[in-house]
Amino acid sequence: MSGSVTVVGLGPGDPSLLTESARHALDRATDLIGYFPYVARVPEREGLVRHASDNRVEVDRARHALALAASGRHVAVVSGGDPGVFAMAAAVFEAVEQGEPGWRNLAITVEPGITAMLAAAARLGAPLGGDFCAMSLSDNLKPWPVVTARLEAVLRADFVVSLYNPISKARPWQLGAALDLASSIRAPETPVMFARAISRPDEAIRVTTLSEAEASQADMATIVILGSSGTRLIPREGKAPFVYTLRSVPGAA
Amino acid sequence: MSGSVTVVGLGPGDPSLLTESARHALDRATDLIGYFPYVARVPEREGLVRHASDNRVEVDRARHALALAASGRHVAVVSGGDPGVFAMAAAVFEAVEQGEPGWRNLAITVEPGITAMLAAAARLGAPLGGDFCAMSLSDNLKPWPVVTARLEAVLRADFVVSLYNPISKARPWQLGAALDLASSIRAPETPVMFARAISRPDEAIRVTTLSEAEASQADMATIVILGSSGTRLIPREGKAPFVYTLRSVPGAA
Repeated sequence: MSGSVTVVGLGPGDPSLLTESARHALDRATDLIGYFPYVARVPEREGLVRHASDNRVEVDRARHALALAASGRHVAVVSGGDPGVFAMAAAVFEAVEQGEPGWRNLAITVEPGITAMLAAAARLGAPLGGDFCAMSLSDNLKPWPVVTARLEAVLRADFVVSLYNPISKARPWQLGAALDLASSIRAPETPVMFARAISRPDEAIRVTTLSEAEASQADMATIVILGSSGTRLIPREGKAPFVYTLRSVPGAA
Repeated sequence: MSGSVTVVGLGPGDPSLLTESARHALDRATDLIGYFPYVARVPEREGLVRHASDNRVEVDRARHALALAASGRHVAVVSGGDPGVFAMAAAVFEAVEQGEPGWRNLAITVEPGITAMLAAAARLGAPLGGDFCAMSLSDNLKPWPVVTARLEAVLRADFVVSLYNPISKARPWQLGAALDLASSIRAPETPVMFARAISRPDEAIRVTTLSEAEASQADMATIVILGSSGTRLIPREGKAPFVYTLRSVPGAA
């Protein structure tokens, strides 16, 4: 009997933001693999074996999942957000490519989820209403000059930019450098949004401007969205402003 | 009694790819507004008034929704995919900003959904595993030189690029021009993915290369994903290859 691997997106946190398809995939699993806070989100169930890990090496977890599947287990690899966006899916396929030839014939599927950028955008209004990019600000897996070259390119081309992994204890200065770069290219009043732990009990949102934004306003659970020239605020009485980006760029036919 | 507007993401098509939260928003609505194929996805229910429209002017639909909400109705504005990504949410906030002052105090929320790019990526493997961009190839709302300048910038900076609205009867040549531009910058063997109607009965996926890709392989229901230098194929016996993008860029510390 052959097993399977399903890489499941748990969304931003609130269980109501899972898709029904992702929930069914969790219901069918015999084994659960993932970073422990994600595994902890899945309710206990008789017969479900949990392999929570604080291992930061995603490819090790992916190999473990594939080996279990090859032995006939039905493994759900869980990620926050969408598993294909700075999460476990790419690590699983990397492990497939580098691993045992038989792993390629396993049933491997991906269940999409609401990634942090979309959850944050929905809370704010529609800041991704125009063209946008998603970048990881981590230089663990790519050289810092590549990060800055990419960021400069999309800032100059007037994309809205979502920065994943903006800051951590081991990477304390990168977000400040990114904000400095943005300030050298975009207007000081450009809206900047810090969206932390969306849909979780400790959710926090801050709408500020490029001239006021500070790296200390972010932590590991934050996504930072840099507005474009078309990003606008709609002030409201007694409430946070709506933030949206114009769909149109001046000069269209 | 004051009403509300909820802009709801219906996901790529299969009802199991809705979030539970989006489904609850549909259950609470008194009125449904949207482009008719999206309204048609929502099951009939006693007391639910349907305002399906073939009107392509999104802001008109948004104003209609806001006026109904101001009269006390609970309106769900439905979009395919995620409403914040080339869909109805930005049009709703544009209408709020330009419309009656009272509209700003309405309860307006956005329910995120699985956007086409994430649904396509999940089917293919993990092609968005690195930094990526989402662009609309339509020049209805922005000048074509802006489209090409943005596309050139992200192609040169080695982002994976998802092209929304790649082609239509009124815009027959733009995708060909975009593929030509990509061919002038990226290697001919770069993977290119055409993902059509993901999760719907007429789903179709084609994995090809930049040198083989042709605009005629896309239609209005297709999203086109241009791989980066880190996008790889994993061939499989008797099945479509997995496609994924390396998380790492050579040269990291």
